[in-house]
Amino acid sequence: MHHEHGGNIYKYNNNNLIDFSANINPYGIPSNVKQAMHDAIDLCIHYPEPNANKLKKALAEKYNLNPENFFCSNGAAEIFYRLVNVIKPKSAIITAPTFSEYEQALLSVNCEIKHHFLSKENDFSLTNSILNDLDDNIDICILCNPNNPTGKTINTDLMNKIIKKCDKNNIYLIIDECFLDFIDNEKELSVLNNKSNNLIVVKAFTKMYALAGVRLGFCVSHNVDLINKLSYFGQPWNTSVIAQQAGLAALKLTDYPQKIAQNIKDLRDKLYLELKKLNITVFYGEANYLLFYTSDFKLHEKLLKYNILIRNCENYIGLNKGYYRIAIRTEEENNKLIKAIKEVL
Amino acid sequence: MHHEHGGNIYKYNNNNLIDFSANINPYGIPSNVKQAMHDAIDLCIHYPEPNANKLKKALAEKYNLNPENFFCSNGAAEIFYRLVNVIKPKSAIITAPTFSEYEQALLSVNCEIKHHFLSKENDFSLTNSILNDLDDNIDICILCNPNNPTGKTINTDLMNKIIKKCDKNNIYLIIDECFLDFIDNEKELSVLNNKSNNLIVVKAFTKMYALAGVRLGFCVSHNVDLINKLSYFGQPWNTSVIAQQAGLAALKLTDYPQKIAQNIKDLRDKLYLELKKLNITVFYGEANYLLFYTSDFKLHEKLLKYNILIRNCENYIGLNKGYYRIAIRTEEENNKLIKAIKEVL
Repeated sequence: MHHEHGGNIYKYNNNNLIDFSANINPYGIPSNVKQAMHDAIDLCIHYPEPNANKLKKALAEKYNLNPENFFCSNGAAEIFYRLVNVIKPKSAIITAPTFSEYEQALLSVNCEIKHHFLSKENDFSLTNSILNDLDDNIDICILCNPNNPTGKTINTDLMNKIIKKCDKNNIYLIIDECFLDFIDNEKELSVLNNKSNNLIVVKAFTKMYALAGVRLGFCVSHNVDLINKLSYFGQPWNTSVIAQQAGLAALKLTDYPQKIAQNIKDLRDKLYLELKKLNITVFYGEANYLLFYTSDFKLHEKLLKYNILIRNCENYIGLNKGYYRIAIRTEEENNKLIKAIKEVL
Repeated sequence: MHHEHGGNIYKYNNNNLIDFSANINPYGIPSNVKQAMHDAIDLCIHYPEPNANKLKKALAEKYNLNPENFFCSNGAAEIFYRLVNVIKPKSAIITAPTFSEYEQALLSVNCEIKHHFLSKENDFSLTNSILNDLDDNIDICILCNPNNPTGKTINTDLMNKIIKKCDKNNIYLIIDECFLDFIDNEKELSVLNNKSNNLIVVKAFTKMYALAGVRLGFCVSHNVDLINKLSYFGQPWNTSVIAQQAGLAALKLTDYPQKIAQNIKDLRDKLYLELKKLNITVFYGEANYLLFYTSDFKLHEKLLKYNILIRNCENYIGLNKGYYRIAIRTEEENNKLIKAIKEVL
């Protein structure tokens, strides 16, 4: 019943596959985080700390907030399912295209979904027209910043207007900042410190720390009552011992995210230009992935023969055949991709 | 908002604590499972296989069923929250005492809960009187076999009557067999192969394989439609890469569970007699834990000074002050417990 996502390497019996279909830091899990995970294995005879209190404390220190502003989860994806149970929305606004788990979570509580279609003509950027959709019939709005699969960010001016409109019309606003770590003006674009009572920011350790298989996400809100209610709609041991320890180790790496972000930005800009040279319609994005369009609708299948897996985006609402998303990987891997695309097209 | 459970060692700043409060195999994680977990760390750069298909296949082989009869979860606890979303019960029967997450999950969908009180006079055994409660106003019945915290099993004759009554009155019957691995006539008592369309059996790797911190459970039903619906009420990546690999390794240990079960049984019977000698009211149970009563309501606090953590059961509905649950641990640890209780009382 779920939409097919990127990153399902298990469908292909191929250990040499380079995975451009999931947007994970290509340098892998940082060594201190890996070591913390190895060390945590012996601790797994115990249940995890309920509600991940130690990790919440470390997050609070990093973001200069209080532990009670945080809820830790089994990957960011779990948050959306818990949130819809707390909010019980009757009608929602999401963009098209965007990450399909928002829609799945909303449908699980029978919420009516209104799609705000992003247009190719605007390079799939979110514009002021979203404000017209935020009327008082809407209960919840979920936006991804930068958006997946487009990599487009929401500018600060528009974001402030969205927050104000949501406050005015009592709309819960969920901002998914899972990929914002990769953006150099992250601090300017993040709304994590905004004090609106209707705002929830979702983040994860998945992408920057390459912990997709570990499952660790969290959300932040100044609405402590809402944060408390999240624990009511699921077990208290949702984050594993290994996830908690990995998260604590990752939070010790204060300079690492910025360094990776700068490196990925350079590689992305290079890859963008290379794709353009091939006469492919690339949509410039700011995250660690790029969306492009080609009239070769079998590109993903052809690249598999080069041991390259890319994300076929035709199952995104708002996109169709010929749209593909690729992660930014190491220089060597990106070169392999470009070479393979050249040969195929 | 959650009830306090056993196993929260994190509340006590004490690395020497012996944890009798969670019912985990005291011999720890088997070495091949541990090795599989270490090996899995490098695989965590990828998302887990959605819906844990490989693990479901291995489970199907072990239990001689089909992969589509299984749903894998982030510990057994997650299952109850997903199940209540699928079934959307208006009224439920659970016993008192029992594992409190059933009640929490039912309350999360505003289900009315009727408690079937187990009586001290019957040693907290489930009797035929449960059948009177299974009328056609009830939508769901959740039973734990053996029950937590009593260790009492449901005999085959009564279980068959319960299944029939539930079938007749169209009641979903959830049987939690998480502790049944520890019981020597497990195969006789398990209803995992019963073909009732209303029956769901819940199990976990938590206790036998000491994987509490890893989070891995599953449920089984011949009702494939219901199993499929479970995936609708949450993310597809609910079980981590490490959990999936740990589960696959654990399933290779074909003789291990029976050996542990026999050993724990011997240790339990010895511990039972030792507690009786101390004039404590012990309720004989068949699982890897024992429930007892003492008029010393501060026993749990006093034992902490001996680095011993036991489960204070006063927050179980149907029990009150003076009830305690202890896990069966190694002979040496059990002796320490007995010695400490002797000194305290």
